Amino acid sequence: MLTTYKAVAKKLPGGLQVETKARTFKIIQDEPKAMGGTDEGMSPVETLLCALGACQVIVGYAYAKFQGVSFEDFHVELEGDIDLDGFKGVKGVRPGFQTIRYNMVFKTNESQEKMEKFAEFIENTCPVGDSLVNGVKLVKAGVIRE
Amino acid sequence: MLTTYKAVAKKLPGGLQVETKARTFKIIQDEPKAMGGTDEGMSPVETLLCALGACQVIVGYAYAKFQGVSFEDFHVELEGDIDLDGFKGVKGVRPGFQTIRYNMVFKTNESQEKMEKFAEFIENTCPVGDSLVNGVKLVKAGVIRE
Repeated sequence: MLTTYKAVAKKLPGGLQVETKARTFKIIQDEPKAMGGTDEGMSPVETLLCALGACQVIVGYAYAKFQGVSFEDFHVELEGDIDLDGFKGVKGVRPGFQTIRYNMVFKTNESQEKMEKFAEFIENTCPVGDSLVNGVKLVKAGVIRE
Repeated sequence: MLTTYKAVAKKLPGGLQVETKARTFKIIQDEPKAMGGTDEGMSPVETLLCALGACQVIVGYAYAKFQGVSFEDFHVELEGDIDLDGFKGVKGVRPGFQTIRYNMVFKTNESQEKMEKFAEFIENTCPVGDSLVNGVKLVKAGVIRE
């Protein structure tokens, strides 16, 4: 059975600030001044990294007990590379992330081997990670003029 | 030349709340109570939709003039489908988004044809959209025990 998640993205007055909402929650996104924004929030590509990191952390905590792994703390450090020439329209250069790298850092007494296996489990189970690795069908349902 | 973006995701005490940071900006993410969280923020899959929507809106506003398109307002409504059986470990079901649909809504006097073309331009130029459509190489740089 499919579960459907929803969001709305709406420009705020001035600059490039965008208010995004899902249910009752809001995130303000923006661009740095060098990109024409007012730098009042993280940029969408940074938000994407945050979605991936949070998803990995949540999967780790949600499944630790089931997977027989214990740790006191777990955080993820992420970085991703984009060639901005793609966004500027240079042919043959993709606008999106080429690679995203991360360290998974556990405070634990478990063995390295056990934690490597658990890290792989997280990668295979994380909905945001799967969306990025295997791609998503994007469908422009409508272009509506008001 | 590659530009590298960074983020950190760190669990907060109790529940499944995660604080994510990029530069000086923070987003709190969480899960609904039905998923074992405390519902203090949007979930990572909703954050992903928000990243995509904000990216499309920013590309639209940043490029309108260059593309010879004028509008008074532009917002994006998004929804995406996930089969939660994938997250629960059912074989053969992916954990991530299968499809993400969106309406691009413009307040404009331009023709439908012109706006359809502009919407396609946005889709082809949006870094988050490209990351999702064409996929990203995810690299587990390290599993670190502290």
